[in-house]
Amino acid sequence: MNAVSGLDTRLTDDHHESLRLWLRLLTCTHLIETHVRKALATQFKTTLPRFDLMAQLERAPQGLKMGELSRRMLVTGGNITGIVDQLERAGLIVRAEDPADRRAYLVKLTKEGRRLFAQMAAQHESWIVSLFSGIPKREQRALNESLLRLRAQLTQESS
Amino acid sequence: MNAVSGLDTRLTDDHHESLRLWLRLLTCTHLIETHVRKALATQFKTTLPRFDLMAQLERAPQGLKMGELSRRMLVTGGNITGIVDQLERAGLIVRAEDPADRRAYLVKLTKEGRRLFAQMAAQHESWIVSLFSGIPKREQRALNESLLRLRAQLTQESS
Repeated sequence: MNAVSGLDTRLTDDHHESLRLWLRLLTCTHLIETHVRKALATQFKTTLPRFDLMAQLERAPQGLKMGELSRRMLVTGGNITGIVDQLERAGLIVRAEDPADRRAYLVKLTKEGRRLFAQMAAQHESWIVSLFSGIPKREQRALNESLLRLRAQLTQESS
Repeated sequence: MNAVSGLDTRLTDDHHESLRLWLRLLTCTHLIETHVRKALATQFKTTLPRFDLMAQLERAPQGLKMGELSRRMLVTGGNITGIVDQLERAGLIVRAEDPADRRAYLVKLTKEGRRLFAQMAAQHESWIVSLFSGIPKREQRALNESLLRLRAQLTQESS
């Protein structure tokens, strides 16, 4: 094997390492999401996009405009306006006038929405703790740190 | 602080570590997916679920039944039958009789489908390599190993 083909093989291996990493990341996320989707349906008759939407509102007590809410969602593949309509009919969120912009409105959790979300979030945390329970804490911390660096890199990349 | 509240704090921290890990995993996956979705739309006028579906078929040259295809998809939120119809109309996949079960059919890539997928896969790999390029190779390998263990744990959990 000459130097050039050696370099080539190494480059290819490095490329495959990144691709493998992405596929593993996607597979793990997919497996956890599938578990959480099923548990939300069984225990709360709700969906992951609805839970995600309520989670974003819970972190923004002042309310969010629709565009900002869309941008913050972590789960794709739900019609945001449709979900807002459903949750509003269920009394879990309200649309309120935006004091800064009379033509826009803010979406907020109601008291009942906050109460239900707190219940769901506690259950959600216990599912996640159980799913990760086989990974030693030291390894979870190392994984956490690597993902933090990856996130910083990805945020830089997309800006 | 007495022993019990010390234990309590530690348990809570451990719980938060797992939840933080899950949210980071989800955020990184979401950022990469968003990047790949945009690049697939711009460069190939296609979607991530279509790309994912073709990727599953590329790994199964003998073809897949619809149920098996659904189970193998890594991306949620597309109507599989709808995507199969679109790709069939575009001449990229075919429905063929299943030799093992005359009432069922298998979905396969056509020659044109394999050709286009090879082009998309090469581009996809280069996007991923570039997105991960800021993470040192040694750290990518460590991350890869941790995710492999996590995947094994999650697969066990869901069976």
